[in-house]
Amino acid sequence: MKITKAVKAILSNYESDNPGTKANLARILMQGQLGGTGKLIILPVDQGFEHGPARSFAVNEPAYDPHYHFQIAIDAGLSAYAAPLGMIEAGADTFAGQIPTILKVNSSNSWATSINQAVTGTVDDALRLGCSAIGFTIYPGADDVFDMMEEIREMSAEAKSVGIATVIWSYPRGGNLSKDGELALDVGAYAAHMAALLGAHIIKVKLPTAHIEQKDAQKAYEKLDSSTQAKRVAHVVKSCFNGRRIVVFSGGAAKGADAVYQDARDIRDGGGNGSIIGRNTFQRPRDEAMAMLGKLVNIYKGKE
Amino acid sequence: MKITKAVKAILSNYESDNPGTKANLARILMQGQLGGTGKLIILPVDQGFEHGPARSFAVNEPAYDPHYHFQIAIDAGLSAYAAPLGMIEAGADTFAGQIPTILKVNSSNSWATSINQAVTGTVDDALRLGCSAIGFTIYPGADDVFDMMEEIREMSAEAKSVGIATVIWSYPRGGNLSKDGELALDVGAYAAHMAALLGAHIIKVKLPTAHIEQKDAQKAYEKLDSSTQAKRVAHVVKSCFNGRRIVVFSGGAAKGADAVYQDARDIRDGGGNGSIIGRNTFQRPRDEAMAMLGKLVNIYKGKE
Amino acid sequence: MKITKAVKAILSNYESDNPGTKANLARILMQGQLGGTGKLIILPVDQGFEHGPARSFAVNEPAYDPHYHFQIAIDAGLSAYAAPLGMIEAGADTFAGQIPTILKVNSSNSWATSINQAVTGTVDDALRLGCSAIGFTIYPGADDVFDMMEEIREMSAEAKSVGIATVIWSYPRGGNLSKDGELALDVGAYAAHMAALLGAHIIKVKLPTAHIEQKDAQKAYEKLDSSTQAKRVAHVVKSCFNGRRIVVFSGGAAKGADAVYQDARDIRDGGGNGSIIGRNTFQRPRDEAMAMLGKLVNIYKGKE
Amino acid sequence: MKITKAVKAILSNYESDNPGTKANLARILMQGQLGGTGKLIILPVDQGFEHGPARSFAVNEPAYDPHYHFQIAIDAGLSAYAAPLGMIEAGADTFAGQIPTILKVNSSNSWATSINQAVTGTVDDALRLGCSAIGFTIYPGADDVFDMMEEIREMSAEAKSVGIATVIWSYPRGGNLSKDGELALDVGAYAAHMAALLGAHIIKVKLPTAHIEQKDAQKAYEKLDSSTQAKRVAHVVKSCFNGRRIVVFSGGAAKGADAVYQDARDIRDGGGNGSIIGRNTFQRPRDEAMAMLGKLVNIYKGKE
Amino acid sequence: MKITKAVKAILSNYESDNPGTKANLARILMQGQLGGTGKLIILPVDQGFEHGPARSFAVNEPAYDPHYHFQIAIDAGLSAYAAPLGMIEAGADTFAGQIPTILKVNSSNSWATSINQAVTGTVDDALRLGCSAIGFTIYPGADDVFDMMEEIREMSAEAKSVGIATVIWSYPRGGNLSKDGELALDVGAYAAHMAALLGAHIIKVKLPTAHIEQKDAQKAYEKLDSSTQAKRVAHVVKSCFNGRRIVVFSGGAAKGADAVYQDARDIRDGGGNGSIIGRNTFQRPRDEAMAMLGKLVNIYKGKE
Repeated sequence: MKITKAVKAILSNYESDNPGTKANLARILMQGQLGGTGKLIILPVDQGFEHGPARSFAVNEPAYDPHYHFQIAIDAGLSAYAAPLGMIEAGADTFAGQIPTILKVNSSNSWATSINQAVTGTVDDALRLGCSAIGFTIYPGADDVFDMMEEIREMSAEAKSVGIATVIWSYPRGGNLSKDGELALDVGAYAAHMAALLGAHIIKVKLPTAHIEQKDAQKAYEKLDSSTQAKRVAHVVKSCFNGRRIVVFSGGAAKGADAVYQDARDIRDGGGNGSIIGRNTFQRPRDEAMAMLGKLVNIYKGKE
Repeated sequence: MKITKAVKAILSNYESDNPGTKANLARILMQGQLGGTGKLIILPVDQGFEHGPARSFAVNEPAYDPHYHFQIAIDAGLSAYAAPLGMIEAGADTFAGQIPTILKVNSSNSWATSINQAVTGTVDDALRLGCSAIGFTIYPGADDVFDMMEEIREMSAEAKSVGIATVIWSYPRGGNLSKDGELALDVGAYAAHMAALLGAHIIKVKLPTAHIEQKDAQKAYEKLDSSTQAKRVAHVVKSCFNGRRIVVFSGGAAKGADAVYQDARDIRDGGGNGSIIGRNTFQRPRDEAMAMLGKLVNIYKGKE
Repeated sequence: MKITKAVKAILSNYESDNPGTKANLARILMQGQLGGTGKLIILPVDQGFEHGPARSFAVNEPAYDPHYHFQIAIDAGLSAYAAPLGMIEAGADTFAGQIPTILKVNSSNSWATSINQAVTGTVDDALRLGCSAIGFTIYPGADDVFDMMEEIREMSAEAKSVGIATVIWSYPRGGNLSKDGELALDVGAYAAHMAALLGAHIIKVKLPTAHIEQKDAQKAYEKLDSSTQAKRVAHVVKSCFNGRRIVVFSGGAAKGADAVYQDARDIRDGGGNGSIIGRNTFQRPRDEAMAMLGKLVNIYKGKE
Repeated sequence: MKITKAVKAILSNYESDNPGTKANLARILMQGQLGGTGKLIILPVDQGFEHGPARSFAVNEPAYDPHYHFQIAIDAGLSAYAAPLGMIEAGADTFAGQIPTILKVNSSNSWATSINQAVTGTVDDALRLGCSAIGFTIYPGADDVFDMMEEIREMSAEAKSVGIATVIWSYPRGGNLSKDGELALDVGAYAAHMAALLGAHIIKVKLPTAHIEQKDAQKAYEKLDSSTQAKRVAHVVKSCFNGRRIVVFSGGAAKGADAVYQDARDIRDGGGNGSIIGRNTFQRPRDEAMAMLGKLVNIYKGKE
Repeated sequence: MKITKAVKAILSNYESDNPGTKANLARILMQGQLGGTGKLIILPVDQGFEHGPARSFAVNEPAYDPHYHFQIAIDAGLSAYAAPLGMIEAGADTFAGQIPTILKVNSSNSWATSINQAVTGTVDDALRLGCSAIGFTIYPGADDVFDMMEEIREMSAEAKSVGIATVIWSYPRGGNLSKDGELALDVGAYAAHMAALLGAHIIKVKLPTAHIEQKDAQKAYEKLDSSTQAKRVAHVVKSCFNGRRIVVFSGGAAKGADAVYQDARDIRDGGGNGSIIGRNTFQRPRDEAMAMLGKLVNIYKGKE
């Protein structure tokens, strides 16, 4: 596996990391159909925790089986597979060495009464299960965000010392943020920036709207052209250390295929590194999902 | 690097510290254009965390890049560069050994619903990244201040044992303090004194106004001439163990160059050790910033 | 340094303590002008934390300097000097071995919004700084008193294992206590007793008034003659294991010299072990303070 | 206890030590009849371990009692008392705070089949027993000397971190050293130097003869005038960082009083810091011992 | 301190190291007269341990004082000062921040009966004393070499995690090596290579002769032109990862100045990084030593 120039350039931005951590980032960046392009598609399956099994899997019953997701990620040539502890444990042996895995180490659920998550995995778990990274969600804006930041701070320091990469899901929620504000451009860029400041290697945020939530930020956005989604993606990428960190965008709730493709084109055109796409994958029949993923790969390769 | 008498005199005030910690203080005091004078200018870039990336950097786009700040601190001959974890990680290798760094180990953000900060870095991070000091903010007056004090107490003890210096940002906020009170002379002097009592090596406070906030303190200030900013600086310095601790003052929000220069002259004339100047640096075009920093250096050298 | 019978008798009351802790108690009891008498005068300088620097030191400017307090404690032949971390660090090397020091390991401040203190020092600090004891304040009656008790319990256990003595400042405040109640005889005796029960070697309380605060305690005090301050002191001393623990009384706010002397005579006549006298010392010009301390020494020696 | 200039000058040589360690050195240097002179006499009673009780104490039966030695050290106004664990434990409470103690933490015995010692005490013991220092013997030249050096290295690091001083007994023995060589000037100076390099605060060696043992060292000694014992002492002191470390000399086997006095005069005149004198003290009747110690004090004071 | 291209190129070879360790290497490479050239001169003063004080210092008496060596290293503009614990402790505060120090953490002595060294310092010592590196000697060929390798392996791993660099003195001795063999070219190159393999950042070896010691290696050296010292230096440098590690050569016993200069020219011409020169410095009068060091600096700068 010779590293391409594109990947080499990305890795060189992680200048304080040890070779073990870089090797795990390289594994993700060199994996599958997009290996070597500097682009990536990650399959996350934590919706069972977030929304319950039936809401997540009933529409496509094979998806109840953890092996299903490993297999589709491998078969579609994706870059990595992310899931909570139990899901990884249920397939880590069968698929050992076949695809980089990201252990989602905190999780919420539909009945949560606070805007927070439980820490449900450890760096030791990641090591014993052969994971390339840990994944962690923070909710900037929430009352408990300082606690969440301290949790990932501690886990990320441990992970870095043993060569495991860190992925932060940064989802603004709670506190004084309005519902629209959660997807606002200024909020999304700020949330991404905080993940970068916390030491994340890969930052996952939602695609932002053109809304500006914070009054104090209005002026800073006056001159910024945010009329297209690609331009908004570009602003988020710039907010992550001027592009020195990998940024991937989530697809959100299941939606029409064309919308999914357009999002990917916008991410690509705005300089984002790729998609993290869960429900839009596993809530479709396998054939459809495979076709969609194939097309997404082509989009990131610049062929469509 | 032969230590000057001015620096030797300052170091001798840290009489309980081990030689490792003193060496790191010496590195800061001997660095750059002001090296050896006993004066210092620190560049802090934690506004991305505090106010978000666009509000911080949109006005001067190159500032989105973490390397920009390392480079300007080096090129302008400043004394040290202070930033949160991600910012330091993004440049610590490229600029290793070129300028002392201060790892800001706690951080707040614009959406915080409590007057507190998250601990986002550790002493181990400071060691692996080659930092000379850790930086920590306390909010005297806030409901959570005891927790914040206990956090820095623990981190500072660890830092001192491994030869890392401690910088405390002491910013009165919250509780029963009025908005005017946050900048009051009595409040600023008290906040600085608490930082000294907590064992800080370098104390960072805001330039105080002539307002006296606390009724119980009125009498104590009756005889104090606080009519000029330099005299108020002198009172804050006196409140830090009669000048036995290094005290630097922040420039606050971006403002006119003349005001920045006057602040520096007042800090100098009042016996303060220097400025910690962030937004007034990186929110200007690089040429302007370099010119301003050059002039500030001259002011501290007594040439202007 | 041959221990006197008076000191020997006091030390024999600490029968569960290891020789290291007793040696530190002996150092305090054998130090200075009162060395060997079983009486002691402690200089505490934590008012900078409690009330701010100007309210504490502006009336006597040299007192801004930490060395000033070490020096006056030594020159006046006092028994020990107590202060928070930064104050001790600022002089511990210069005055190493010259006077026993007590590291005040928790501290409050004028802006606190809860009746509690921050832990600002550790037993490890006490060891590296050569302190003979740690000092800790509890606020019996306050909502947070159980937390404070648990903190000192933990620190005191550690201190005892390494030969460091424990001084507890027991100041009733908060909860259902009235303002008058804070100084009530029953309350003061009860607070002193709780400090003894927590394992304190030296107990510091305020001089009590004749007021009885607790209805349930009225009956118990019916037959007690508390008409003079000396008799009230005697009751507090009796409440500390019938005199088996060292009890010192605070002088409170700065006041007239005659009142200070009368307090000392009452403490002496009531069988108290001495005074802990801060503001009444350092808020006077040095000459006056030295004269006052000299007279206090004579009072405790029974000469005045 | 105001430190004298002589003691202050000595303490300033221990520039890397924390105030706790300096305070314990100060306690030794300010204790007893020689307190403040910069000279010291230490009473060591480890001969019971080395030679057995009868050989050590039968000649003066009260010396079987551990209290006897504490008492004589106090009554004669000596600087410190050094002994193994059991001896210290047997009197540490009775004499707490009366005289600085040095816990001898390794010991040999007459039946040893290797030239080594057992580690028989710990830094924790020193803390709980209120000792000011640990004492440790190394045998430079012995096959096991590297092990011994590593033992004291580890214990001394721990001791320094908690404010306990380190005394090293450096006694050349074994290996290729001849019997005469053990007392040779070059060997003694080298042994003292090694103790200094290991980080000892106080170095204890034997008074050297004029013999030069090492062929390779002959040339270096050609120009050195070693004709008198005082000159040889001066050379040993110079070998301990040019006098930056405290050096005391042992009296060796019991001998005539005049020889003991002459040794002390030579130590004094050569710039040594004092005597460590065991058998010559406790193997004499108490009256004689007290008289001898009184005379030694006078010698070190320059009165005889 | 802007890093030069030469230094940047060297630092880039330490690609697995964290920024803290690189910063310490940078400090050494940017220090003094040779700062920025990629060349360095280190002053080592461990001969007191190795040969005793008189053989080391009698020829130049001021050298008995530890401060003498710090001062000459600073005044002559050398790159670093290396010494055992006691020597560093005796000056670390006075010279804090003035010159990078290397704590020699193992030491032998003239009376050793095995070919080994005692571990006499720790990484914690290096941190508290502000050292940039630890130094460790291995004796390839000796019976105990595996133990020595395991000791430095453990210490070096700890040092790297906290940003401290590692210097290995690799001195072939013992076992089946002949006396001539200790300086043989094949042996020296092999010893240097083992130090590199053990993870050393800086490798210190002796200048090799043209002798080939190992029969099995004869063939490999047949075609190598080792006729000049510069060519032999080049072979050793090549053996250290083709020049990817810093290699310095020792001057050996004190000798004529011309020989010292020729050695330096050969090291320079062979691509070595510099000299580690002890006895040839401190065994000369200070003026002579300063003149010699000045000339050596010029040689490494290519001026002589």
